[in-house]
Amino acid sequence: MLKRCGYNPLLVPADVKPSNPRFQVDGIFNCGVARYRGEVILLCRVAESVRQTDENKLEIPVVVNENGKDVIKTVVYDKKAQPEFDYSDSRSVYKKGPKGRRTVANLTSLSHLRVARSGDGIHFTVEDRPGIMPIASEESWGMEDPRITQIGETYYITYSAVTEHGVCVSLMKTKDFQSYERMGIIFGPENKDVAIFPEKIGGEYVAFNRPVPFGIGMPSMWLAKSPDLLHWGRQKLFMATSHEGCWDEGRVGGGAVPLKTEKGWLVIYHAADAADRYCLGVYLLDPEHPEQILGKLEVPFMEPEADYEKEGFFGNVVFTCGALLQEGNVVIYYGAADDKICRADIELEELYRMLGV
Amino acid sequence: MLKRCGYNPLLVPADVKPSNPRFQVDGIFNCGVARYRGEVILLCRVAESVRQTDENKLEIPVVVNENGKDVIKTVVYDKKAQPEFDYSDSRSVYKKGPKGRRTVANLTSLSHLRVARSGDGIHFTVEDRPGIMPIASEESWGMEDPRITQIGETYYITYSAVTEHGVCVSLMKTKDFQSYERMGIIFGPENKDVAIFPEKIGGEYVAFNRPVPFGIGMPSMWLAKSPDLLHWGRQKLFMATSHEGCWDEGRVGGGAVPLKTEKGWLVIYHAADAADRYCLGVYLLDPEHPEQILGKLEVPFMEPEADYEKEGFFGNVVFTCGALLQEGNVVIYYGAADDKICRADIELEELYRMLGV
Repeated sequence: MLKRCGYNPLLVPADVKPSNPRFQVDGIFNCGVARYRGEVILLCRVAESVRQTDENKLEIPVVVNENGKDVIKTVVYDKKAQPEFDYSDSRSVYKKGPKGRRTVANLTSLSHLRVARSGDGIHFTVEDRPGIMPIASEESWGMEDPRITQIGETYYITYSAVTEHGVCVSLMKTKDFQSYERMGIIFGPENKDVAIFPEKIGGEYVAFNRPVPFGIGMPSMWLAKSPDLLHWGRQKLFMATSHEGCWDEGRVGGGAVPLKTEKGWLVIYHAADAADRYCLGVYLLDPEHPEQILGKLEVPFMEPEADYEKEGFFGNVVFTCGALLQEGNVVIYYGAADDKICRADIELEELYRMLGV
Repeated sequence: MLKRCGYNPLLVPADVKPSNPRFQVDGIFNCGVARYRGEVILLCRVAESVRQTDENKLEIPVVVNENGKDVIKTVVYDKKAQPEFDYSDSRSVYKKGPKGRRTVANLTSLSHLRVARSGDGIHFTVEDRPGIMPIASEESWGMEDPRITQIGETYYITYSAVTEHGVCVSLMKTKDFQSYERMGIIFGPENKDVAIFPEKIGGEYVAFNRPVPFGIGMPSMWLAKSPDLLHWGRQKLFMATSHEGCWDEGRVGGGAVPLKTEKGWLVIYHAADAADRYCLGVYLLDPEHPEQILGKLEVPFMEPEADYEKEGFFGNVVFTCGALLQEGNVVIYYGAADDKICRADIELEELYRMLGV
């Protein structure tokens, strides 16, 4: 049985010191997970917005480069004087583009990545300062949803690199969770939810990715391959969205970085229905041929049910970027309602039974 | 001065024998260009649809695999019995997706690639049969807009590989324009208009590509790099769409495969305004650093003006996939109004003057 941790939520916005005195923390969620020097590290997405002082205005943080230095500036919308923008979505300001296209003029919050540490995997301490802040040239609208893949002693981190020109997926690496080296965009826009397998398979690196096409197709799970982690190709559709009315009708994409088990790759992924209710599903994939599904559960094994999952910045969401194997348990760290970090455990044997493997 | 060829249009649908007696040819357009054994080869996109026999129905060709064999089947829409679909666009049938998302249910035509040959670059003979037909596993909805890059004696062809799951860009190669080897998807959905430079620059292959993002950003020109033509990365935005009311407001993307000149890379690209009027623009790029623009024309050097460009399957379009350098002239082969192939010449020196280089 899936067991939600009794200490949930493990981390909430009040646990996070804003990076700037003018900011408020809207959420700490969608964290990459790693083991490092006997501790569990969560690399958390921290979303911040400007504390608004005038209800007729909306002030939005973005990163700009001034005289060679990356600084955070604010864009100010005057809601009355600028009725051509749509302010109804708490996450974005929209504008009307060509041909009736509704495009995002700005995100209301700016996300950075921050480390939280724990000795027991339950009680976490969030660092007082951002681990890594977005830079104007690569992530002027923020860094989101990191996933950590450990290969040898190097931790490779994929994340959504957001600018006004699109949501790309970029790669960086660290050996100590103190200094990070940016390695650039690995998937062009629009893509998200890249989970790199922790070893080469058949001589190549393998990653799930979730393109978001405009004209044809839905946000679905694709599998790509790479010789060097920097250049990716040989894209194949892995799993498409399902039919009308299903839990995975709206989107389906990578979740936790795949876990290596004795029976194959255990993949915990996300899917959402037409109402943006995000659940978690699970696959078991062939150890040598990750495009081959050995077991699949047709229903979600985890749905937003707890109050802290149903209510928040964006409710009815459970969303994972990373899980750990620990003494026969799969320990899932997940974002709840786009503002909190939680934990749930399930026995590996029980997942095998569900998957019929 | 840009000189449209006096024999325009060089190729029209009536010049093309349908691949199937039940089909009609809707267009021959958007062709890759190569020199091969003293001839000019155009690898043309040929769009075919089913000759409709019942005005209340719409029969659509798609490729399916039956018992291991790729065959063309038709999908039949009964317009009266299926009012949930939108039949108003001549190019696509739309359906309502989740969250009011309008998705393409089917394309009305199926495109394949076909060779046309000429000794003088003006009078072309179209082969009676398709050069290469789409296959169910990779292009069930067709192959579109090929671009040819000659590297040594091998011709690499990029093309839009369309399925119900998205528009990807795939690569294939040939040495003789008779047999082709598919090399798979090189850019996942949604992407189009990939033009690979004809040699490595700084040790890597370079290509323009035009992602079509869903949520943030517009269809813009990006530059990617590759060690092997199969895996691509290091994406950088090259040129974004322009402002409201401009000729390049709606989209901007690769056109002809870049031409090497003594002053740098000559890039003829396409852009469209909010009304989908497609024009051609031109850049000159640094020979060693193709991300550096040495000269740019702020206005199009070619707009749809001739009747055969203004009227057709989709009017007000000039769109190129390839050009040749010939005795000081740039010879542009282009699709006109999405149904014809035309030619226009312009002196290289004049382009240099326009570009101020």
